[in-house]
Amino acid sequence: MIVIPGTASQVLAKEVADELNAELAGITCKVFPDGELYLRIEGEVANEECVVVQSTPRPQNRNIFELLALLETLREGGAAKITAVVPYLAYARQDRSFTQGEAVTSRVLAKHISLNADEFVGINLHESTILDYFTIEAGEIDASPELGEYFRSMKLDDCVVIGPDRGALPMAERVAGRLGCEYDHLEKTRLGPGEVVVKPKNLNIQGRNALIVDDIIDSGGSMVEAIKMLKAQGAADIYVACVHPVATGSAISRLFAAGAREVVGTNTIPSQISFISVAPLIAGALE
Amino acid sequence: MIVIPGTASQVLAKEVADELNAELAGITCKVFPDGELYLRIEGEVANEECVVVQSTPRPQNRNIFELLALLETLREGGAAKITAVVPYLAYARQDRSFTQGEAVTSRVLAKHISLNADEFVGINLHESTILDYFTIEAGEIDASPELGEYFRSMKLDDCVVIGPDRGALPMAERVAGRLGCEYDHLEKTRLGPGEVVVKPKNLNIQGRNALIVDDIIDSGGSMVEAIKMLKAQGAADIYVACVHPVATGSAISRLFAAGAREVVGTNTIPSQISFISVAPLIAGALE
Repeated sequence: MIVIPGTASQVLAKEVADELNAELAGITCKVFPDGELYLRIEGEVANEECVVVQSTPRPQNRNIFELLALLETLREGGAAKITAVVPYLAYARQDRSFTQGEAVTSRVLAKHISLNADEFVGINLHESTILDYFTIEAGEIDASPELGEYFRSMKLDDCVVIGPDRGALPMAERVAGRLGCEYDHLEKTRLGPGEVVVKPKNLNIQGRNALIVDDIIDSGGSMVEAIKMLKAQGAADIYVACVHPVATGSAISRLFAAGAREVVGTNTIPSQISFISVAPLIAGALE
Repeated sequence: MIVIPGTASQVLAKEVADELNAELAGITCKVFPDGELYLRIEGEVANEECVVVQSTPRPQNRNIFELLALLETLREGGAAKITAVVPYLAYARQDRSFTQGEAVTSRVLAKHISLNADEFVGINLHESTILDYFTIEAGEIDASPELGEYFRSMKLDDCVVIGPDRGALPMAERVAGRLGCEYDHLEKTRLGPGEVVVKPKNLNIQGRNALIVDDIIDSGGSMVEAIKMLKAQGAADIYVACVHPVATGSAISRLFAAGAREVVGTNTIPSQISFISVAPLIAGALE
């Protein structure tokens, strides 16, 4: 097996190759003065099982074109099997059409990845229904066990795992499973006309540590609200964790300013908070 | 017929629709804070002949993804026939592999356009062999007659059309055909050890006006050399024309600084010198 490192996942690809005892291909990627990419995969790929590891965070469209070009180059080079590991799949939040004529860009991307790959592996897709848009074998890895392990090693006292909304409850449950602690999600409760409070649905957070988990931190807006609410309800230390640290603009600073003690994500997207590696999970899925 | 304007060709698409008396679709294109594109094609496209006009200059990969998303949205919307008009095709200069493992990115792009289009129309592709990479009907328009018409209307005295290299000679011939004048190309002549002169192969330019034509002006480097050489050989006024004004960085200024009296290109790429419209040619090819 040969692991081909896309430029958006150079360290992660190396870690995956190490985990698998697989060859790590050399690649050359340059940008011409007019902005076009130049790509070359070094070494022989004919009749080899090839795994491209290329994430697609911003600049999404550049990273997507690089991914598609690597896959096509492997196809033309006669690779025996081509697997596209896309740790963060761009456009996953555009997974359906709400108005006539809207581009379902996650479907667009899925179809184009399918053109020259034999298999797709994603991680915590925003909606698992996206897997159906692929016309090849497509699977999804759940990174929440790694989030759980990270915080388990911190040995937090009396911790509760919180999903910032109902949709994040399953992830909160899986992380809590690793920590052996309780979990809940935040819910809006109407106290009276125009008076709304957001708090954990079932648990009292007073004096307890909270670990808020979600699949993505993008602008950080909803996470900031969650931190403030839990603080107002007397939470002790607040930790924030996500799989995909999109972290647009000043998102990370905003979370600290709101009172987060620690903010971590995985390396599906290289960022200032990508402290947790998904390499063991990817390697496990490829074995 | 419905013309769908990609954001890189909004004016050109309007002109094409006008030429054809066709409907111009409304499209919405927004960019989310994380950098992802949002696209929507307004109106009904089911069972309609649809023509997407979307050029792919810098930012190439963004414009490419928009193109692919528009094509896929038309496909899913049930369009009867989908034509992709790509006035400037990115990556056309990467049309073959020089070293093992090099991505042939023009082939990558051609295959992906072919996924959801029924027909491709390009303009002065750097190499016509690129047409073979498409798996759909694919054709190419020559814009040099429009360059010729533009300069014919200027009624230049005693003009010679010059290709900056041997490869540009056919275009020089076609432009000269419109102007009813002579044409030639520049050629290196070795005068002695280490002494090289670049001049028109057959003609004497002394005291005559020169129109230098090429398919692309990118950095402008070879065009600057051509201007200087023709000036040194006593040319009168020098005009520069191209089909695709890629015009990276300060290319246009450099041409003026070298002594060009006028620099023009077509609107295959919107730019400061896109004075010649290819809309009539595109409309003609679609009729």
